[in-house]
Amino acid sequence: MHGGTTPLPTSTCQYVRLTFPPSFFSSSPLGSRALHSVCDPTPISGFRHSPMAAGSSSSVPSDPLLRDELDIVIPTARNLDFLEAWRPFFQPYHLIIVQDGNSKNTISVPGGFDYELYDRNDIDRILGPRAARISFKDSACRCFGYLVSKKKYIFTVDDDCFVAKDPSGKQINALEQHIRNLLTPSTPFFFNTLYDPYRLGADFVRGYPFSLREGSPTAVSHGLWLNVPDYDAPTQLVKPNERNTRYVDAVLTVPKGAFFPMSGMNLAFNRELIGQAMYFGLTDDSQPNVRYDDMWAAWCVKVICDHMGFGVKTGLPYIWNSKARTPLVNLRKEHEGIYWQEDIVHFFQSVTLSKTSVTVQECYIELSQQVREKLGKVDAYFIKLADAMMTWIEAWNELNPSEN
Amino acid sequence: MHGGTTPLPTSTCQYVRLTFPPSFFSSSPLGSRALHSVCDPTPISGFRHSPMAAGSSSSVPSDPLLRDELDIVIPTARNLDFLEAWRPFFQPYHLIIVQDGNSKNTISVPGGFDYELYDRNDIDRILGPRAARISFKDSACRCFGYLVSKKKYIFTVDDDCFVAKDPSGKQINALEQHIRNLLTPSTPFFFNTLYDPYRLGADFVRGYPFSLREGSPTAVSHGLWLNVPDYDAPTQLVKPNERNTRYVDAVLTVPKGAFFPMSGMNLAFNRELIGQAMYFGLTDDSQPNVRYDDMWAAWCVKVICDHMGFGVKTGLPYIWNSKARTPLVNLRKEHEGIYWQEDIVHFFQSVTLSKTSVTVQECYIELSQQVREKLGKVDAYFIKLADAMMTWIEAWNELNPSEN
Repeated sequence: MHGGTTPLPTSTCQYVRLTFPPSFFSSSPLGSRALHSVCDPTPISGFRHSPMAAGSSSSVPSDPLLRDELDIVIPTARNLDFLEAWRPFFQPYHLIIVQDGNSKNTISVPGGFDYELYDRNDIDRILGPRAARISFKDSACRCFGYLVSKKKYIFTVDDDCFVAKDPSGKQINALEQHIRNLLTPSTPFFFNTLYDPYRLGADFVRGYPFSLREGSPTAVSHGLWLNVPDYDAPTQLVKPNERNTRYVDAVLTVPKGAFFPMSGMNLAFNRELIGQAMYFGLTDDSQPNVRYDDMWAAWCVKVICDHMGFGVKTGLPYIWNSKARTPLVNLRKEHEGIYWQEDIVHFFQSVTLSKTSVTVQECYIELSQQVREKLGKVDAYFIKLADAMMTWIEAWNELNPSEN
Repeated sequence: MHGGTTPLPTSTCQYVRLTFPPSFFSSSPLGSRALHSVCDPTPISGFRHSPMAAGSSSSVPSDPLLRDELDIVIPTARNLDFLEAWRPFFQPYHLIIVQDGNSKNTISVPGGFDYELYDRNDIDRILGPRAARISFKDSACRCFGYLVSKKKYIFTVDDDCFVAKDPSGKQINALEQHIRNLLTPSTPFFFNTLYDPYRLGADFVRGYPFSLREGSPTAVSHGLWLNVPDYDAPTQLVKPNERNTRYVDAVLTVPKGAFFPMSGMNLAFNRELIGQAMYFGLTDDSQPNVRYDDMWAAWCVKVICDHMGFGVKTGLPYIWNSKARTPLVNLRKEHEGIYWQEDIVHFFQSVTLSKTSVTVQECYIELSQQVREKLGKVDAYFIKLADAMMTWIEAWNELNPSEN
């Protein structure tokens, strides 16, 4: 793990309470360094914490929601200058930066942010042989951040996403909206036509069953994108210049039984509720299923949320997505996934989990077994993926022993 | 049937092609008059048709969508002055006005509209003993208009609904938006996070299965309300002054398997596809299930659309709902329905229709049998309602012999 050069104040330790079990480090060649750098208030590799960075203090909310209960996870392969745009909203929170690609590259983080940074060497060191299950050269590596976080909530955002504006021209605090989505219930069992009934000025409409008005715990908040929409390569090719300019002022629960394409670029979730199912799969360059990392997580998460009675919201907040990726490159990456997608969706739409699976972990293990059994017939890749799902759970248990 | 005094031009007959089978009129005491007034180009009771009414011609679109394929059905108990506000949008279309309450009251229709008007005497005359299945003193009587229409599409709107404005201040042509919703496919089998993918500037996002991108036929377009929201009496009592001011710029498909509260006050549907399931039930003052007329239709329609693979959309267009009804009166009307609602929803959420039901009519008949069998245990009212569902189908078949 790497960090900035500013000495770590004692107060920062509330953000950094990773505990790795001894058994875990015995298989990790440089585990002791990782342990030290994370948990010791005088870390070897340093830890940046500059809350009074120039020009930022006045715009930072004095008491931001869930400051001590939420980590922001950012996968990146470059300097994080984009954080300047987010400073008023992100600075009070702790960042977990997962460096993608070549570990020799230095990721520069603007001053004033409290963060920990993991590169590939760190991931290898911490996970040992299991590190192969965390994708490389792909933003799917972000899920390593979910493993090492110890917070109740996660917000993950891509480094080409900027602050969008609402129709009045006001900057959108995406994180605040995600938190609001996560802290209010969902309504997966009946659709409310005025959308989020818990929002100020809205409610359940006539005909909505009273027994369902308490709602369900919200596990996921999926945000959207103005400017560059998250299109697949064929759609990008057909509509290279299409931009999303429509601000839809709504948050809604994806109903039970319905599946949706969950993009990982602007996403928040309750890690305690659903973190164990938020594995982004095997999607790096050496794998055939690239660009389906978040979709894989979406399908797994939705099946399990439906089984557990948790809610998944989509809609607000918007971020400004700046970068239209090269469609021809994406087409090369996606073609296998596009081919398999139909089988995968059919599988997930027909999957049922048994009543004996009463925790997310039990659900996820059962799901991996069904993936092996049913999707394994489509391609051997899915057998490897089913194994990786099990490895993910093993790693989760080792890094989060108190949760099980 | 009644109408205005302007002589009926020959061209109007395209709107008026009701044909009642002889067997039907043999049981209808004044059937011959109804037959004459509807089908004869020189009707006994007259038919208003004034397309060049003062001040209207310039604002009427020259070639409105589906002019010859859509009827506007309006249940009312008073003068239809509200039509003045809708003139630019409604005038090219044919209106079917179903008079609610005392037949002695004269309903005044502003000049320039092409309409037919049915009061209770007409309904009794046309349906004979079956007329008891059409609710009285309740806007549920609107479904009589669906029976007698011969058009492919229906738009129904309440007489206290006015033209809303979009955020730019432009008047919303609700009918045009409904038509657009009905003429473009739905996406019931997978949720698209950018909402309606067929809308200009939108598409299916990454991860949306390609096999589902052709969509499904759209059966229903459910529009929303600015100003007075459609709340039940308890919510009205708790929030008497809450008004809906949020314009959500979206149309979306209610996913397969999800139920929603469908209000009848701003609703369009493909009568050919789903008209036979659009019965508004027994909900008049003599019945215990008042204010659940549209909800009953919603539940039946959604189960059948899911079975048939049809789509149901909700969202745009908005109308301006002007009238907050008295919550204490509504509470008296609703309390039985609120009590039963939980059982009803549970019933519909668990209903399955057999594979042998391959038409909407077969589905509706099977559904009525299940209502009798399962909801009949909740209260004898549902046995009467199941009978009424069968009567509705009989009446449909008699009035629409060519459809079966």
